[in-house]
Amino acid sequence: MSKQGLTHFDAAGRGRMVDVTVKKNTRRIAVARGTVRVSPETFLRIQDRRIEKGDVLGVAQVAGIMAAKRTAEVIPLCHPLPLTGVEIEFNPRGEDSCIDIEARVKTVGPTGVEMEALCAVTGAALTIYDMCKAVDRGITISEVRLVYKHGGKSGEYRAAEFKGSFPQDPSE
Amino acid sequence: MSKQGLTHFDAAGRGRMVDVTVKKNTRRIAVARGTVRVSPETFLRIQDRRIEKGDVLGVAQVAGIMAAKRTAEVIPLCHPLPLTGVEIEFNPRGEDSCIDIEARVKTVGPTGVEMEALCAVTGAALTIYDMCKAVDRGITISEVRLVYKHGGKSGEYRAAEFKGSFPQDPSE
Amino acid sequence: MSKQGLTHFDAAGRGRMVDVTVKKNTRRIAVARGTVRVSPETFLRIQDRRIEKGDVLGVAQVAGIMAAKRTAEVIPLCHPLPLTGVEIEFNPRGEDSCIDIEARVKTVGPTGVEMEALCAVTGAALTIYDMCKAVDRGITISEVRLVYKHGGKSGEYRAAEFKGSFPQDPSE
Amino acid sequence: MSKQGLTHFDAAGRGRMVDVTVKKNTRRIAVARGTVRVSPETFLRIQDRRIEKGDVLGVAQVAGIMAAKRTAEVIPLCHPLPLTGVEIEFNPRGEDSCIDIEARVKTVGPTGVEMEALCAVTGAALTIYDMCKAVDRGITISEVRLVYKHGGKSGEYRAAEFKGSFPQDPSE
Amino acid sequence: MSKQGLTHFDAAGRGRMVDVTVKKNTRRIAVARGTVRVSPETFLRIQDRRIEKGDVLGVAQVAGIMAAKRTAEVIPLCHPLPLTGVEIEFNPRGEDSCIDIEARVKTVGPTGVEMEALCAVTGAALTIYDMCKAVDRGITISEVRLVYKHGGKSGEYRAAEFKGSFPQDPSE
Amino acid sequence: MSKQGLTHFDAAGRGRMVDVTVKKNTRRIAVARGTVRVSPETFLRIQDRRIEKGDVLGVAQVAGIMAAKRTAEVIPLCHPLPLTGVEIEFNPRGEDSCIDIEARVKTVGPTGVEMEALCAVTGAALTIYDMCKAVDRGITISEVRLVYKHGGKSGEYRAAEFKGSFPQDPSE
Repeated sequence: MSKQGLTHFDAAGRGRMVDVTVKKNTRRIAVARGTVRVSPETFLRIQDRRIEKGDVLGVAQVAGIMAAKRTAEVIPLCHPLPLTGVEIEFNPRGEDSCIDIEARVKTVGPTGVEMEALCAVTGAALTIYDMCKAVDRGITISEVRLVYKHGGKSGEYRAAEFKGSFPQDPSE
Repeated sequence: MSKQGLTHFDAAGRGRMVDVTVKKNTRRIAVARGTVRVSPETFLRIQDRRIEKGDVLGVAQVAGIMAAKRTAEVIPLCHPLPLTGVEIEFNPRGEDSCIDIEARVKTVGPTGVEMEALCAVTGAALTIYDMCKAVDRGITISEVRLVYKHGGKSGEYRAAEFKGSFPQDPSE
Repeated sequence: MSKQGLTHFDAAGRGRMVDVTVKKNTRRIAVARGTVRVSPETFLRIQDRRIEKGDVLGVAQVAGIMAAKRTAEVIPLCHPLPLTGVEIEFNPRGEDSCIDIEARVKTVGPTGVEMEALCAVTGAALTIYDMCKAVDRGITISEVRLVYKHGGKSGEYRAAEFKGSFPQDPSE
Repeated sequence: MSKQGLTHFDAAGRGRMVDVTVKKNTRRIAVARGTVRVSPETFLRIQDRRIEKGDVLGVAQVAGIMAAKRTAEVIPLCHPLPLTGVEIEFNPRGEDSCIDIEARVKTVGPTGVEMEALCAVTGAALTIYDMCKAVDRGITISEVRLVYKHGGKSGEYRAAEFKGSFPQDPSE
Repeated sequence: MSKQGLTHFDAAGRGRMVDVTVKKNTRRIAVARGTVRVSPETFLRIQDRRIEKGDVLGVAQVAGIMAAKRTAEVIPLCHPLPLTGVEIEFNPRGEDSCIDIEARVKTVGPTGVEMEALCAVTGAALTIYDMCKAVDRGITISEVRLVYKHGGKSGEYRAAEFKGSFPQDPSE
Repeated sequence: MSKQGLTHFDAAGRGRMVDVTVKKNTRRIAVARGTVRVSPETFLRIQDRRIEKGDVLGVAQVAGIMAAKRTAEVIPLCHPLPLTGVEIEFNPRGEDSCIDIEARVKTVGPTGVEMEALCAVTGAALTIYDMCKAVDRGITISEVRLVYKHGGKSGEYRAAEFKGSFPQDPSE
């Protein structure tokens, strides 16, 4: 069993924002992924709109970037961090009528940006949901998870599925 | 193929906030669900903390309620609505080491609160993630979906899985 | 002992936003007060600036009005309400070198605006503190309380100290 | 000289949120316009990107809609209103290398949505500025003004330039 | 009389955000306190709920931490600072049926976090008020003040009442 | 034609927050200007109120400062930056019955504060609009533009019209 406790609790058993005052500012990256499953009909509509004249994914991307910036407002014990980069990429997969979302978030700070990457994914996913819910009530958001993390004392985390690399990988 | 188009797009193919000016204010309910999967060890820690002195789910619940109120700030084309009730319930399932989340949101307004219920679920789920991520890097948020909706012209929607009923079911 | 329970808790003992879906929209007023105690020197500076060219209370008043509008973002279980009026008044009392603040907030809604009035008072008080703290480290904010409330099923509440009346008193 | 005073000031000469408690909820529309002037080169880049793969105006449109929803947070004495519709339209004019912006905002409420329409225009304009400023430092935002307003006691306002009409014009 | 002026005013006598551009980033701590007075009956209810199944103070603590992060949004002339730690502690005193609140806030920045600590205290206090107001209309928030401050050029401030010490006291 | 592309677009042609992770933190200044045109009657009212007892420009100044702090929330692809100074100045010009606004914003960060200065100007201008619109429906906001910028790799930008200098000009 891990020695590290649930650091979000103070001595009285309630929440606290973990003290990172003495931690060094280092470059940090986090990459998160998630999937939005829609009906085959909705999938085609999203694709067609984007080609014709609409862009569900364009709005979702803006929403995801803005959601990353709001992370510390939504997650109670999360540290506010000045993000230095946010990118969101969509990978529509027709065979499963779903859209894979990947968010890459960077900062230079005393703690990581996992939550910011995850908030970017859910913000984008919920926006796809919102824009399509009038024609599809069975949409599902799934597999929201961290796949990569770099920077800080705890080093690199790389899920088996993640093959990416960063030309400007953070070094302290 | 459904006759209803993707109403979030205007004539130029870009986003707009759909006009609900002439729709009547009616009582509306939406119920959404989602699941957070953690490791068996993390599951026990969450449970034990709650009994001993900590309360991951207590913080997550507050976060979910507050996230519901922020929905129109995060989802670009979502109407701002004065919520009249938000409840969040957690159902920990030890056999799968996961926590099921259910959010019930109500309003009296011209449009529904599906997005608010979904934002409550993701807000609570991300907070569980945040509070446990130091001891568990493989947490996954899944199956975020709408299970019930009542009120407005489009009537009731009830997913097969949803058995609930509301003593004060909305009537127009 | 009052029969009414702590309605902010759900069956599992956690917080919830109380369901006011079936309550009627009625006109509501709440009046709150509070006091900022400063040093005699600071008191004179505030007064003089206002006469000369500066206006601590002007900034504090704007801050208080804006804080009233943010109430539902800061108080977790508070309902969002479309405020229909906010006024803030300052009463400097030289003999005690303190400034009394009174906030009057109105809405037409299913629940009251006590918290909005109290947030207006603390927002204004904290702003006075912020603007004077460089010259006075011993400032204290005290006696923040509700003094009047009208509208809704629970009727009027009037603290002994409150003598005010409203020409357009809410009637349902 | 108009008999109506500057209603945003209270008796002590400071700001207040004007009391609209007793005003009826009516349907309201406001239309605002503004212009972003860029260099001819930037104008072509915006156009080309939109055709090829980028969409400055798509991001600006989302920003404008979201800015409309934030109006009461940015304008201190503005009433919070539950918007029921927001549309933003861009009209690029190549001969002047500028983009005209029109925002149409609707609500059902006790006061108008002029400020919301103006905030939508400036939010969209500033976003165009932000996305192009790396290649053009001389961008200017101009002629931000109200062109149409309907609903409420003060009736219709129509600038000479405005020829539009609304199929669902508000009626009380 | 102190030589230091009211630095929040510019030459025209209006507010400005004081320029701290050239100040060094140093570790900073601020500790603030405040007291919520309730009726003896409410005091017992809060205590009992916490033991049985509810946790007023748990919700208040989350609210206080989130309020600290919002300080620069509520206090007009306050600098935005990336907080590196927030802790809130409650000390219920049965003999006076009141709850003492202490907030400890840290950052590494060019200016102090007094306002953040004070906002944490008022955020938590107002939340206790909100959760108990249905059973107790006479709640009062009092004695909100700074008790400790360390870091930056102005050095340490320690109110007579404050006996605390910090293992990781800030050093530049 | 400039070699620098529209850096806000990623490979798929959608928006991203430009990566500034590897850029050095340097002192940065941006100065923006804009003009609010009102009727001669409104101009006199603003002036008189300010002398007598009201202060339109005082409220507008607070609004402008707070708007600068919200920039990254309103402009989708803008980096959040910890501002270190904001000043706003009004220059009423009676002959044209207009008010010139100048905002000066500073930070120490990896990217500039042009958007923050522009948001301060529009926030102040819209507030003047809001406070006077009841007596003047033809107000126009114009000539919002950057006039000065210093700091970072791209060096100084100085519009022909800008004659100012900064005693503490940023040096890296």
